[in-house]
Amino acid sequence: MIKLGMIKVSVLYPNQEGKSFDMDYYCNKHIPMVAKLLGDAVKGASVEQGLGGGAPGEPASFIAMGNLYFDTMESFQNSFGPNAAQIMEDIPNYTNIAPVIQVSKVMI
Amino acid sequence: MIKLGMIKVSVLYPNQEGKSFDMDYYCNKHIPMVAKLLGDAVKGASVEQGLGGGAPGEPASFIAMGNLYFDTMESFQNSFGPNAAQIMEDIPNYTNIAPVIQVSKVMI
Repeated sequence: MIKLGMIKVSVLYPNQEGKSFDMDYYCNKHIPMVAKLLGDAVKGASVEQGLGGGAPGEPASFIAMGNLYFDTMESFQNSFGPNAAQIMEDIPNYTNIAPVIQVSKVMI
Repeated sequence: MIKLGMIKVSVLYPNQEGKSFDMDYYCNKHIPMVAKLLGDAVKGASVEQGLGGGAPGEPASFIAMGNLYFDTMESFQNSFGPNAAQIMEDIPNYTNIAPVIQVSKVMI
């Protein structure tokens, strides 16, 4: 259940020429692994696949977006920190894109 | 209720020097206006405020992100199209940032 004030950590994969992204691995291996490692600290998760931009025929800015929700910044940092290395090491298994990470606060 | 396969339309406001964003207006005027104009086609909405990037002290890539969910691409296009001009005209009332628009499919 996503609530106001929660911390949302978004991992955005820019849609770049010559890069690849394995959505099947991401959804069925990477995200479940992250969820298991971070445990109860994770209050929600979502994944989206980019389809396009705002104008007809415009490519999506991001080929994929993954989002994790936490109650507080502390619970994110305390759960992610000790597992960061293992999570990062799995990235080359599904993509050669360097993701953009954004930490946000849920307002609506 | 967000379901697999739904269309998510994200409006991302890049965090740029010298730019402004009125989060109060956005949450309390703009989003309710958009929701009213698009009516039943909108199945969910969320707004996030950028707090930071992935590294300590790194600024957020996006100062704000707004998301709307639709059952199908057609219901997005059919509801948004006739209201696009009115929605676009409201943007200068809360920001001078040119947003990045991304249309995605909900995978998780």
